[in-house]
Amino acid sequence: MIQTPYLLFLGDAPDALAAKVAQGIKDWRPENCVGQYRMEGCKADLGLVDMTLEEAKAAGAKTLVIGVANRGGVISQAWKKVLVQALEEGFDLASGLHNLLRDEKDLAAVAEATGQALHDVRVPEVEYPIANGKKRSGKRVLAVGTDCSVGKMYTALALDAEMRERGMKSTFRATGQTGILITGDGVPLDAVVADFMAGSVEYITPDNDEDHWDIIEGQGSLFHVSYSGVTMALIHGGQPDALILSHEPTRAHMRGLPDYTPPSLEAVRDMALALAKVANPECQVLGISVNTQHMNDEEALAYCQKVEGEMGLPTVDPFRHGAGRLVDALAEI
Amino acid sequence: MIQTPYLLFLGDAPDALAAKVAQGIKDWRPENCVGQYRMEGCKADLGLVDMTLEEAKAAGAKTLVIGVANRGGVISQAWKKVLVQALEEGFDLASGLHNLLRDEKDLAAVAEATGQALHDVRVPEVEYPIANGKKRSGKRVLAVGTDCSVGKMYTALALDAEMRERGMKSTFRATGQTGILITGDGVPLDAVVADFMAGSVEYITPDNDEDHWDIIEGQGSLFHVSYSGVTMALIHGGQPDALILSHEPTRAHMRGLPDYTPPSLEAVRDMALALAKVANPECQVLGISVNTQHMNDEEALAYCQKVEGEMGLPTVDPFRHGAGRLVDALAEI
Repeated sequence: MIQTPYLLFLGDAPDALAAKVAQGIKDWRPENCVGQYRMEGCKADLGLVDMTLEEAKAAGAKTLVIGVANRGGVISQAWKKVLVQALEEGFDLASGLHNLLRDEKDLAAVAEATGQALHDVRVPEVEYPIANGKKRSGKRVLAVGTDCSVGKMYTALALDAEMRERGMKSTFRATGQTGILITGDGVPLDAVVADFMAGSVEYITPDNDEDHWDIIEGQGSLFHVSYSGVTMALIHGGQPDALILSHEPTRAHMRGLPDYTPPSLEAVRDMALALAKVANPECQVLGISVNTQHMNDEEALAYCQKVEGEMGLPTVDPFRHGAGRLVDALAEI
Repeated sequence: MIQTPYLLFLGDAPDALAAKVAQGIKDWRPENCVGQYRMEGCKADLGLVDMTLEEAKAAGAKTLVIGVANRGGVISQAWKKVLVQALEEGFDLASGLHNLLRDEKDLAAVAEATGQALHDVRVPEVEYPIANGKKRSGKRVLAVGTDCSVGKMYTALALDAEMRERGMKSTFRATGQTGILITGDGVPLDAVVADFMAGSVEYITPDNDEDHWDIIEGQGSLFHVSYSGVTMALIHGGQPDALILSHEPTRAHMRGLPDYTPPSLEAVRDMALALAKVANPECQVLGISVNTQHMNDEEALAYCQKVEGEMGLPTVDPFRHGAGRLVDALAEI
C-alpha cells in the first residue's frame, strides 16, 4: 500500500506522452496529487502546482511517484539527486519503471538509512495464497478484451468514477502497474508466479458489503496467446458477477502477433462467459466498451449503435459517451 | 539440463510412497538410473542395485537425485552428510524439494568450491521469453484434464514410451518437477512468472522435424479455478495439434475445492478445443485417458467402453490398457 497523497515527479520528460502515468493519476485521482515536480527541460505539464520537495512536504505529500518513463532504462544522475533528496526529506518513492529502485545501491542505502519505503510496483509485495474458489460476498465486475490494450483499465476506472458519482459503493482493483500507482494498491499480476495468480486476484477482491462493487482491472485477452493465462486467472480468481466486453475495432491483428486476427465480440462473449460460470454460475455479460479513438464522433456513435443492435447489450465508448449506460446495467443486478 | 545417468537417493524413506519420485524415474527412464542409495532405516526399495557413492561414480553416475520426500520440510543432518560427500565426489545434486538445496549454506558453499551444480527443479533455471505465437514445425500433443492430478503426466509418459517403442520420433516435455527429474529437463511451469508462462512452453517445444511429436505434460485444468491460468498457457504456448482428455471418474469434487463439481468430458472437450484453435486452428481432440485406479478391471473396461460410445473417441486407461490406441489415433494425423 503506497501512502497518499503524492507529489508527481515528471523529471525531464521530453513530451507529454512520457508522463502518461502521472497524467493517469491526475485524471483519475486528483485528490491524491498535491502537486508536480518538474526538472529543468521538462516538456510535460499536468496543470498541477509546481512544487519543491519542501513545499510538497509542507502540503502533506507522503510519496514521490515517478510518473514519467526514463530514457534507455537508466535512472539518470540528475533524477538520482532529486530521489535521494526526497528520501532524506521523508518521502517514500514509488515507481513502475522496469529497472527497480531497490536495485540502485544508493537509493536502497538511503532508503534504509532514512526508514523510507521504495515501492517498485512491477514486483509483488505480498506473498499471495493459492486461490480457494470460495464464494465471496459483494459484487464484482471484470472487463475482458478482444485484445491487449483495448481500454480495459480506462473502462474500469470510468465505471468506478461513475459509481462513486452516483453514491454507489465501489472500489477500483488495480492489476497492473499504472493502476497500482493511480490508486496506491493492487497486484502487478503479470509479475506474479503462476500458481498464485488466481489467489492474488482473490486477495485483492475480498468479502465485502453485498452492495459493494469491486471493479477489477482486466489484463490481456483469452485470445492473446502470450497472456491468456493471466486473463484466465482474472476470470477465475475474480469470480465476476458481470463481464464487460472491451474492444478496439480498427485493429488489423492482435497486438504484437501479426499472424493472429482479433476475435469477434461474440466469440469473446461466449468463451469468457462459459469460463466465468465455472467460478460464478450467475455471471452475466452486461455491456460493451469500445475504444473509438481512431474514429470521428459520427463513426464512433454509428459503430456503437451497430454493435448494440447485433449484441443486444449497451455499447459505449466510456471516454466519449461516459460509462453511465454500463453502470445502469450493473446497477440492476 | 540435469546430467544423466543418476544415482537415486532414497535416504531414510519411511515407506515406498515417500520415494515415489525415484519410482517414477526408475519406471520411465530406467536407462538413466545406475543404482539406488539407501541410508540406514530406509523402507523403500526400487529393486535397483544398492551402491555407495564411489561405486555409483565408477558406474558413471553424474547426478545424485533426491527421489524421496523429506520430513517436515527440513534437510536433515544425516542427509547432509551424504549430499556433501556426493558433491565432494563429483556428483551434481538434483531435487524437487520445497526447501531448496541452494538455500542450505553448507551445500551451496561445497557446491561452489567443488564446481558441482545444484538443481532445484522447483525453480526455473531459464529466463523465458514472452510467447510469440509463431507456428512451429513438428507435431505436439497435450493432455488436458477434467481436474488436477487425474493422470496427465502418466498419460504423456505412456504416449512417449509407446511412440518410442514404435520407432516414432517423440520427446516427453516435462512441465512439473517430477517430470523434470524423470527426464532431466523441462519447465517448472507453476513457478514461472505469469507473463512468461506461455513463452516457457514455446521454449521447451521448439521447431522440430515434421514427423516428431512433442508430448507435453499437462498441468491443472481449465475448470480448476486455482490453476486454470497455467492450463491456459499450456494450451496457447504448446500450440497442440492434438489434445487427449484426461479424467478420473470417481472424484466427488475438484481437488482441493469442495464446492466445485468436476466438469463433464464434453465440457472439457469443447472448451479446450475452442481455446486451442486460437493458437492452432487444426487442433483436434483425438482420445481420452481415464485413470481407473479406483475401479476393478471389469468396471474400468466397462467405463472406458461407455465413454468411448458417448464421445466417439478411443478411450483407455494407459496404465491398464496401454496407450496403443491413443498413439494409433495420433499417428494418423
